[in-house]
Amino acid sequence: MDRGIVQNGLRGVVAAETALSEVDGEAGQLVIRGFPLEEIAPNAAFEEVIMLLTTGELPTGEEKESIKRQLASYRELPDVTLYLLRDAAAAGIPAMDALRMAVGTLSLTESGESDLSAALPIIAQFPVIVATYYRLVQGKEVLPPRSDLGHVANYLYMMRGEVPGREEARALETYLNTVVDHGLNASTFTARVITSTGSDLVSAITGAVGALKGPLHGGAPGPALDMVFEIGEVDRAEEYLRAKIERGERLMGFGHRVYKVRDPRADVLAEAAKRLFAEEGDASLYELATGVEKIALALLEEYKPGRNLQTNVEFYTALLLHGAGLPTDLFTPTFAVSRMVGWIAHCFEQRELGTIIRPESVYNGLRDRTWREQLPSL
Amino acid sequence: MDRGIVQNGLRGVVAAETALSEVDGEAGQLVIRGFPLEEIAPNAAFEEVIMLLTTGELPTGEEKESIKRQLASYRELPDVTLYLLRDAAAAGIPAMDALRMAVGTLSLTESGESDLSAALPIIAQFPVIVATYYRLVQGKEVLPPRSDLGHVANYLYMMRGEVPGREEARALETYLNTVVDHGLNASTFTARVITSTGSDLVSAITGAVGALKGPLHGGAPGPALDMVFEIGEVDRAEEYLRAKIERGERLMGFGHRVYKVRDPRADVLAEAAKRLFAEEGDASLYELATGVEKIALALLEEYKPGRNLQTNVEFYTALLLHGAGLPTDLFTPTFAVSRMVGWIAHCFEQRELGTIIRPESVYNGLRDRTWREQLPSL
Repeated sequence: MDRGIVQNGLRGVVAAETALSEVDGEAGQLVIRGFPLEEIAPNAAFEEVIMLLTTGELPTGEEKESIKRQLASYRELPDVTLYLLRDAAAAGIPAMDALRMAVGTLSLTESGESDLSAALPIIAQFPVIVATYYRLVQGKEVLPPRSDLGHVANYLYMMRGEVPGREEARALETYLNTVVDHGLNASTFTARVITSTGSDLVSAITGAVGALKGPLHGGAPGPALDMVFEIGEVDRAEEYLRAKIERGERLMGFGHRVYKVRDPRADVLAEAAKRLFAEEGDASLYELATGVEKIALALLEEYKPGRNLQTNVEFYTALLLHGAGLPTDLFTPTFAVSRMVGWIAHCFEQRELGTIIRPESVYNGLRDRTWREQLPSL
Repeated sequence: MDRGIVQNGLRGVVAAETALSEVDGEAGQLVIRGFPLEEIAPNAAFEEVIMLLTTGELPTGEEKESIKRQLASYRELPDVTLYLLRDAAAAGIPAMDALRMAVGTLSLTESGESDLSAALPIIAQFPVIVATYYRLVQGKEVLPPRSDLGHVANYLYMMRGEVPGREEARALETYLNTVVDHGLNASTFTARVITSTGSDLVSAITGAVGALKGPLHGGAPGPALDMVFEIGEVDRAEEYLRAKIERGERLMGFGHRVYKVRDPRADVLAEAAKRLFAEEGDASLYELATGVEKIALALLEEYKPGRNLQTNVEFYTALLLHGAGLPTDLFTPTFAVSRMVGWIAHCFEQRELGTIIRPESVYNGLRDRTWREQLPSL
């Protein structure tokens, strides 16, 4: 066995080739199945992105309608899934745990294939699980799905109890398109490791939901907006932010581990937020958020010159999701509604390889302990 | 970002240091928390191995009794877990899927600590889940746990409906001690990746159960014994095995990916099987199995000279578990009853590091696709 050096966290180790997405942090570019993010995210329906990611091709108009019909037909949850969600809500289980449990019960609909037919039932049911759990936790009546609504509008409807405005649904759709895949993050890697043993799709995505829950994973955009709400008025922003930076605290919503220039996802979501708030949202919140952003960027340049800290995807995610009527509690679950598609596409890709992912460990523990010495009394 | 070469399957990449176990395939040695396997496995109670693996120390006599009492006190399953198992059994869900779903519901008892108190409820409940599901699938009455029985005897009791013989329980205990940990196999690695995001214990072990299910994972000892049963009489072994080898088929139960000499686990289990069958088991099956083994080894040396193919852990696992009264369907779940302890110990170890496991991918897909070109009709 190779007794090489320990690659802690596997940072910089290339564990997979993928045709799904490319994250180029130096150039600030994200490619999704050949499309620069800014080409695909604002233009596509999520149903189109589902087919693009899982098969490599965009659907024809007819295929797109078929995907919509199929997604609508799969929305009803199994009784056992509903029972589990009701029990979890009664016990006050945190949302991500409840969603992991519930998604784990979807094995009944798993076909074992690596195609759209295997993906669509899970993709259809996951947002229904999220919306149902949200209603249960709120003590509100659980709503049946509406087959006349698309994937995105039905999610918002089942959560809020009213059909969303066109721009609200479009804003959320742009978000779902934007975060659908992002290289080998920890949850995607989890799905690939589980799949690599020859296990099934539901096992893999259940593991991925479990990994996404962890605070080190990223994708928790709540805090960026909390800061904006706390500031409340643009006039108070400079004093508030200056004090925060001088206390050595991090400004949530700025800077990214990988992107050294502006995160392309932030650009796409900024555009989408601008459009949403111009049409349907609370314009004053948009003014406040962009005002805070401008002052924060100026102060970061003043205090950390040359670091080039930019607004990250969390900042505009929070603004956009809030504008689309989603409560902060649902930000991470809604991220999963999108990323589910990326996880499944990675599972399909991993299956093609047919090799197990199994790194080595090195032992740094004790040696030569003997039973008698340990337990002289025996 | 490093655009290094792709490490397919991460083979030979060292992803973690561990003080839990060392697999030395060249020397044919396995160390568990400082003890050579042959020191600890035949001597310890599984309750002792639980504390050893999760804390590094063997319990005092008093601590051992306390662990036994605590395990017994945690055995009752939550209603929702039972409901789920009943539903899964009615739907004919395969055992490993049902167990993954059921173990995923144990979040209620998760304390968030990295110590025995967090580990024991899950360790106590998992074999109860396995035995309960087995009884449900068999259409038999589900038995309540017996708090007067130890961890191993209670598992056999709840599965079979009768208190096992002393040697049967001891044989199963030796097996559980033997396979409790084995470096970074794919399920253990899954648990560590999920934990590395800061996620919880139940999320991590649910992912691990999902990974263990896959046929490439290993730990499915059924086929080795099936071959022995098929041969039926030692006199028929040579002809049967010779024909099998000449057809180019693999002899299940011989050879191992890592161990180039005899797997130390096979030795320990061979000894345990010898003792079990001398005292309580079907002596003729033991004679048959060891007779088949002897002929198989001679033929492997004849057909593949110098390869040094040895009896592997699956062969004696199958013999031992069969002798302890376990049906083939429960071999992989019983492996999980043991390995659960290893998974949890690895989660605790990973938590100490506090770093996320996140390798990179390289993109090998298309580029520069544009939305208009793709959909000229829009």
